[in-house]
Amino acid sequence: MNAKIQFLKNQMKILNLQGMIISNPVNIRYLTGLVAEGTLLIAPKENVFLTDSRYLEAVNSYLTIDQEIVTYDIKNLTIDDYITFFEECENVGFEEKYVTYELYKIYLQTYKVNLVETDGIIEKYREVKEDAEIENIRKACFITDKCFDHIKEYIKVGMTEKEVAFEIEKFMRTNGAEELAFDTIVASGSNSSMPHAVPTDKKIEQNDVVQFDFGCKVNGYCSDFSRVIFMGNDIPDEVQKIHKFVLNEYEFIIRNLIENVSVKKILKKCEQDYKDNEYELLHSFGHSLGLDIHEEPILSLKSDLKLKNNMLLTVEPGVYIPGKFGIRLEDTVLITRSGCNTLTKSPLTIFKTI
Amino acid sequence: MNAKIQFLKNQMKILNLQGMIISNPVNIRYLTGLVAEGTLLIAPKENVFLTDSRYLEAVNSYLTIDQEIVTYDIKNLTIDDYITFFEECENVGFEEKYVTYELYKIYLQTYKVNLVETDGIIEKYREVKEDAEIENIRKACFITDKCFDHIKEYIKVGMTEKEVAFEIEKFMRTNGAEELAFDTIVASGSNSSMPHAVPTDKKIEQNDVVQFDFGCKVNGYCSDFSRVIFMGNDIPDEVQKIHKFVLNEYEFIIRNLIENVSVKKILKKCEQDYKDNEYELLHSFGHSLGLDIHEEPILSLKSDLKLKNNMLLTVEPGVYIPGKFGIRLEDTVLITRSGCNTLTKSPLTIFKTI
Repeated sequence: MNAKIQFLKNQMKILNLQGMIISNPVNIRYLTGLVAEGTLLIAPKENVFLTDSRYLEAVNSYLTIDQEIVTYDIKNLTIDDYITFFEECENVGFEEKYVTYELYKIYLQTYKVNLVETDGIIEKYREVKEDAEIENIRKACFITDKCFDHIKEYIKVGMTEKEVAFEIEKFMRTNGAEELAFDTIVASGSNSSMPHAVPTDKKIEQNDVVQFDFGCKVNGYCSDFSRVIFMGNDIPDEVQKIHKFVLNEYEFIIRNLIENVSVKKILKKCEQDYKDNEYELLHSFGHSLGLDIHEEPILSLKSDLKLKNNMLLTVEPGVYIPGKFGIRLEDTVLITRSGCNTLTKSPLTIFKTI
Repeated sequence: MNAKIQFLKNQMKILNLQGMIISNPVNIRYLTGLVAEGTLLIAPKENVFLTDSRYLEAVNSYLTIDQEIVTYDIKNLTIDDYITFFEECENVGFEEKYVTYELYKIYLQTYKVNLVETDGIIEKYREVKEDAEIENIRKACFITDKCFDHIKEYIKVGMTEKEVAFEIEKFMRTNGAEELAFDTIVASGSNSSMPHAVPTDKKIEQNDVVQFDFGCKVNGYCSDFSRVIFMGNDIPDEVQKIHKFVLNEYEFIIRNLIENVSVKKILKKCEQDYKDNEYELLHSFGHSLGLDIHEEPILSLKSDLKLKNNMLLTVEPGVYIPGKFGIRLEDTVLITRSGCNTLTKSPLTIFKTI
């Protein structure tokens, strides 16, 4: 029996759910390994994957008997068939964070059961990573570092942000990544003051601050990473000062992230530092990642989170001066019993092009 | 005043909605041009875009006074502020196809109004394209054709499916496309029998059928296109026969697509052809596209659709022989008063490499 589905069944028992409808494709991939459109039903009689003819051949050749999942082509199912899946169930859970209001109504009509909202049962389980998952993320981080090494040599005044962003993608995808983990950010000059800048046709100029934020996927698992390059040799005092501030915040957080620590306590200190320097906090200090680039928990001042061994997070303090420039430093890190290990390992200096 | 928002307000009046919450980012982009995370509120007092500090600078520099949209940073809003947005409203619509069950509950708590499900008001408006939209899709189709010209020369026995897929992406993105419209399909040999095959490390072999399905985006607007290359000179009879069948279906549909025509009537004839030849129908014959790669309406046997002038659709019949090969031919086409114009224009032959 699939161990993850067994865990889910135990959780369902605690919540008095006899069945569960899993609609989020990332959760389906996590539980079964399947990468196909469809719906996974966990039910007393049998676990079922409902899919359509486009995916049927691939799904059937992937699933093994051990998985104990029966596949159905939705084209062949009657209204009565749908009712039989959960006919012994009193309560059936659904993923309220993923299912649309429309789909909820369709499920009600289709399965004719009492639907119960569930809030991230599987996502909660995904928070602590298994060795194989960490290994994939480690590989994605390795490619990301190699890519930044390449970009430091590659980038030149006169290139556009878009050109450099595309070079990042080409490098990662020809060096073992299957795809980007998210849209690459290359933001130069005053564009860097927007944390979520989109690469433009703006040419990178002499003495620009260039903010990078990128990552890739290996076997579906993400890396996330930010660094800054200065397009010159003579870094202005204001840039140096803010880089130093961000670096200090980064190092303070990294030193304190360890199993069982209270995140709020660490971040309160950072919040005070921002206030003392009159910098605005434009985003959280980090987030978990895995099959999704943004997973729970996040490093937020409002969080009651206690860290666990084998959680994977980003640490990413940033300061943004509107209309001028911004600086963010970010690594993907692994929480362990003895502290945190950065999986992206490029130096944190503000790089200069000479 | 923004003309599209004016149209929406007229629709809302018909539905007795005094306010509307727009959450789908594609609909927000369509109505306002904004490409940023946030929520658009259409309300009697003022139209509001709620966003966060990551996007604020970009949003404010993009919006003009003519748009009549006021931006708020959600960080600065109190519980009471949210209630005031719709305080004169009896009924407020929300997008039931986009909003999750969880978000629906949050809206109820936040805005304290009577929420009314709406089903694709904006999507319905998006079905008929404006000239500027058609122009963007025309450009995306032009790049797509150019790319296929390039790939016909580029592809060689021994390359992997992934390599060729990446070359397609590189070509389109260095020739004017901002990104892919969807994940490129390059499926060779028996992989081509799966309509939604993902490019693998399989090497392309002599005498493989290679199925291509790709498209790109220009200013957010998509193209969609499929063709087949045979890796040799001597096409087997079975491949020729199926290519001829698919081509006939394609041509029959294209000849008959015209304003006001009933789609069901055309496709019934195709369905009969498939039955007569004992081929299975694995997917619909086409779909609309625009800012999304899949939009309503679709070319389905179940559809009561009557075509309208300036609708944009794909036409994509396909036949798949499990374990052996598949052939799909697809163009992006524009419906006009005098027939349909294909915007992708590559020849429909099964290309041979010599």
